[in-house]
Amino acid sequence: MKLLKVDSVEQARQKLLDYVGSWKLDRQIISMEACFGRILAEDIYSSEDMPAFRRSTVDGYAVLSKDTAAAGESIPVFLTYVGEVEMGKAADCPIGSGQCVYVPTGGMVPEGADAVVMVEYSEEFGKEGIALYTSATYGENIVQIGEETEKGDKLLERGKRLQAQAVGVLAAAGVVNVPVYKPLRLTLISTGDELVSPEAPLHLGQIRDVNTFALKGLAEKNDFTVVKNLIIPDDEEKLVNAAKEAMSFSDIVAISGGSSQGKKDVTRVVIDRISSPGVFTHGIALKPGKPTILGYDELSGTLMVGLPGHPVSAFMVFELLLCDLNRHLNKSVKPPAIPARVSINVPSSPGKSTCYPVTLKQEDGGYSAIPVFGKSGLITTLTRADGYFTIERDREGLSAGDVVFVHLF
Amino acid sequence: MKLLKVDSVEQARQKLLDYVGSWKLDRQIISMEACFGRILAEDIYSSEDMPAFRRSTVDGYAVLSKDTAAAGESIPVFLTYVGEVEMGKAADCPIGSGQCVYVPTGGMVPEGADAVVMVEYSEEFGKEGIALYTSATYGENIVQIGEETEKGDKLLERGKRLQAQAVGVLAAAGVVNVPVYKPLRLTLISTGDELVSPEAPLHLGQIRDVNTFALKGLAEKNDFTVVKNLIIPDDEEKLVNAAKEAMSFSDIVAISGGSSQGKKDVTRVVIDRISSPGVFTHGIALKPGKPTILGYDELSGTLMVGLPGHPVSAFMVFELLLCDLNRHLNKSVKPPAIPARVSINVPSSPGKSTCYPVTLKQEDGGYSAIPVFGKSGLITTLTRADGYFTIERDREGLSAGDVVFVHLF
Repeated sequence: MKLLKVDSVEQARQKLLDYVGSWKLDRQIISMEACFGRILAEDIYSSEDMPAFRRSTVDGYAVLSKDTAAAGESIPVFLTYVGEVEMGKAADCPIGSGQCVYVPTGGMVPEGADAVVMVEYSEEFGKEGIALYTSATYGENIVQIGEETEKGDKLLERGKRLQAQAVGVLAAAGVVNVPVYKPLRLTLISTGDELVSPEAPLHLGQIRDVNTFALKGLAEKNDFTVVKNLIIPDDEEKLVNAAKEAMSFSDIVAISGGSSQGKKDVTRVVIDRISSPGVFTHGIALKPGKPTILGYDELSGTLMVGLPGHPVSAFMVFELLLCDLNRHLNKSVKPPAIPARVSINVPSSPGKSTCYPVTLKQEDGGYSAIPVFGKSGLITTLTRADGYFTIERDREGLSAGDVVFVHLF
Repeated sequence: MKLLKVDSVEQARQKLLDYVGSWKLDRQIISMEACFGRILAEDIYSSEDMPAFRRSTVDGYAVLSKDTAAAGESIPVFLTYVGEVEMGKAADCPIGSGQCVYVPTGGMVPEGADAVVMVEYSEEFGKEGIALYTSATYGENIVQIGEETEKGDKLLERGKRLQAQAVGVLAAAGVVNVPVYKPLRLTLISTGDELVSPEAPLHLGQIRDVNTFALKGLAEKNDFTVVKNLIIPDDEEKLVNAAKEAMSFSDIVAISGGSSQGKKDVTRVVIDRISSPGVFTHGIALKPGKPTILGYDELSGTLMVGLPGHPVSAFMVFELLLCDLNRHLNKSVKPPAIPARVSINVPSSPGKSTCYPVTLKQEDGGYSAIPVFGKSGLITTLTRADGYFTIERDREGLSAGDVVFVHLF
């Protein structure tokens, strides 16, 4: 048996990078309509100028700006109306000095014109006369060719999480086939003789499995795909068989429970039996989350993880280690955290990073973060919390009023 | 033709509530495994005490705490080992004074015991002797019956967005059939002779439709379901037909484009033709977002919306009016906004609410919000932005350094 000392969160992260940080995520091409929430796998460049023609931003008259210089509220200038641009059509009515053409919002500005005067400042005079009651400056109310973006401009960066507005840009640029990362394939195993699935009847001594369901949501939100989740008793052979099978179709096999030092805590033994080089971290200096195991199997290229059995601990470790790893691999960025003033004094744990779930309360000019206390076995702790903050390992505890950054769940 | 003056954002919201604020959203029962991200339609109460038995939080020996009072690092107390509790089983080995029983983490604490001493502080002495090198206080290392939650306690509240940790609570409580709101059914119509779908070739004067795709992502993230999206030319009869058909299977029909005052802006006419009482708001005091139309058809119970054609404007109006309405109907809460210091002086617009898309930059102790400027027709404006803040209608502009609350996209 190898002897391992507890790693700090930073050490565990670094070891994860050493073992699997060079993983190349697979890519896949999916339709633009299905890409919402996925992570972009390539930079997207514009293949054209947008717009490809000069567009009017208003309903009005395309003019030569110098023709309008003398116009004012009481003394209009008069121009000859020579036609109308149709939406969606090329403008086939070039104008010269003294002339104007009607252009709807979004319509193409005809050759010769260099400004558009809003229709609100105009009046029709007879069949071919237009009076304009305001002057226009050069380029006014016109989006120039390439003003949105020029051919070759980078539109979106690899690692971008494709939210609604990014999908809009893909639509605008005609990128209907979108290169995204394939999510890492994750198998979640909950181990424990006391665990039953949520729909089963509950006998004395038993509890329902929480972790595979809570972690599935967290995982999928962070671009993992849960290929299998199952409950296995604390039986070494059964765990070996289940985990071995999972290694054949998973990038990560996470076993929750069975990771502390008790009699039946077999996760570590199992990981060392079925993987080589096997366990490289047993225990991290994190509260809650200490009984965490990390291992690697070189042959199958599988990351093996033992998560704490307590739901809150498992949740925090998954968030701090595995979601962080996935962001490294797919180049995505953690959403901004919310600065808030902690409502009470909170202690740090000597030599450990400490996670505090908190409720946020809006106050004048900001938020206060109210720690939600509860034993780490209690999942209800987390539902009362909007997010969490971390006190790093070598930091002092905090005083009421200190600013923390709250990551939202 | 009815004459309508421009509404403030607050007035428009109030009118929306007057017309459709009493809508009762349909409910549906879905499986726990499919409920992630949905909105809970009923309060969920615990049907039992959790845990239903006293659980140990450590691997150790269940004892009577008073038996251990004299124990210390150098002078242990000796107890008689009378058995072991198996995980997942009822503890069938009650103890008396002078006795102890091994209990694994999560195991049931036997009758008679009132504390658990961690195995780390114990030593075996012969076949039946256990030496304990620390004292335990009453209740130490035990989760009491109902400590997680008691029968009848409210676990989750109607309107809760079911994130990972809430799904964990449902699993813990055995709620495998989850009552959620059915999303509002939304049809998105982009209207404009210049619009082509993103996969079609682009001719001079044409642009690709952005709004139906960008708004679909925004809508689905906010618990709408987009039942149909389509592009219709600026042709009154075609729009009437498409919108009328959509009214038969939609709660909301949103037509983007064609909502300002130009020659071909037919949305208002169309809504008034096919709905009664018809248009109740034409124009809102919002920048960007002024050319917004709201109407209602009593017979079919359909909300009719004309959104600005400019993508950024359409996006903001959808966010500020329709997402806000949906939160009112399904009782969900807008995620917390991020307090940030605006990086430059920004003007307000007289008589209007103003929306500023911003990039967030983390700084010492907080964020600065850097406005992203761009004409509202430019969707690329939004992708450079992390979120937006609003200056309310009657407020002054802001000075650099003022605190704003940034809603993330």
